Amino acid sequence: MTSKNGRGASRTEIRLAGEGGQGMILAGIILAEAAAIYDDKNAVQTQSYGPEARGGASKAEVIIGEGEIDYPKVISADVLVAMSQEACDKYASALKKNGLLIVDQEKVGRVPTTRAIKAPITRLAVETTGKAITANVVALGVLVGLTQIVSRAAIEQAVAARAPKGTVDMNRAALLAGFDIAEQLPGWQAARAAGPA
Amino acid sequence: MTSKNGRGASRTEIRLAGEGGQGMILAGIILAEAAAIYDDKNAVQTQSYGPEARGGASKAEVIIGEGEIDYPKVISADVLVAMSQEACDKYASALKKNGLLIVDQEKVGRVPTTRAIKAPITRLAVETTGKAITANVVALGVLVGLTQIVSRAAIEQAVAARAPKGTVDMNRAALLAGFDIAEQLPGWQAARAAGPA
Repeated sequence: MTSKNGRGASRTEIRLAGEGGQGMILAGIILAEAAAIYDDKNAVQTQSYGPEARGGASKAEVIIGEGEIDYPKVISADVLVAMSQEACDKYASALKKNGLLIVDQEKVGRVPTTRAIKAPITRLAVETTGKAITANVVALGVLVGLTQIVSRAAIEQAVAARAPKGTVDMNRAALLAGFDIAEQLPGWQAARAAGPA
Repeated sequence: MTSKNGRGASRTEIRLAGEGGQGMILAGIILAEAAAIYDDKNAVQTQSYGPEARGGASKAEVIIGEGEIDYPKVISADVLVAMSQEACDKYASALKKNGLLIVDQEKVGRVPTTRAIKAPITRLAVETTGKAITANVVALGVLVGLTQIVSRAAIEQAVAARAPKGTVDMNRAALLAGFDIAEQLPGWQAARAAGPA
């Protein structure tokens, strides 16, 4: 998942994409804070807004590395979380060859590879917390559960630190639901081992 | 305030810095969304987290341009909003020669130039809304009031769209308080006309 740059530092590029209102930007911030504040890595988190922002699409990018991060944008993503069909269609081609594609299975009907990880992210959010808005935290649980890009302890702390007052328990439940999904899935390693679609 | 890159596109670099919990990252997101969603410009918004993140410092960068934004990070800031002494000490030297420095006058005692704009940002937030956490929105009001980097209508819409449920009026009041401060200040143009300190 991680790649080495010219100076030998590891670098993992993650893109979180969906519609406005799904909280993908906040998810990106939480992931970056988990890495940098609670896991002692470096992180850069970016939103780029062009004309597509007016159409309601939303996208966050996170680069996580052990060393200094020289270029702050995604070049070729290691991981894409797509929470809408538009996001999947737009960004799946910018994944690395063996990159990890995670989609919300009720939002994304068509995936470009049989190796995509389909998870009932928004449905689980509603079942667990009663609120679809926690789907972004469920997605973080799936992502971290599958990749271990940050530790579970770090993402739990980062989610709690960003949860609005009175919602810490609810958001923790959403995160744990995401971890559970990840454990029930074949796993990214297994998906990769299966080779190209 | 804006500069031209090699392709003739305008580019304005803004850095918002303070302590964790002051909401500077959210302020950066709101400013970028004002530019891109409501004002038809392009914007990139970035957080870089290194070891200093563990110390509680917080920094957001926003690049706003008319055309495509080729490099997403601040090279030499046009505007710095410093909400803590540490933030001022750390980033003031990375301002452009005639850049705009806005500081919270009760948080920042020492400024490196007599041309700094000192505003009672957090005090006004508390007086206006009863909540210091709205200082980030007051700061946006001061910034936009002085620079017109985005329109007042755009920043009002962006603040409202990001305000937690039930706090739209409170956040609007904080923004207007920031506009008022800006109108009572000598203004950035006046400050620039005064020349180097």
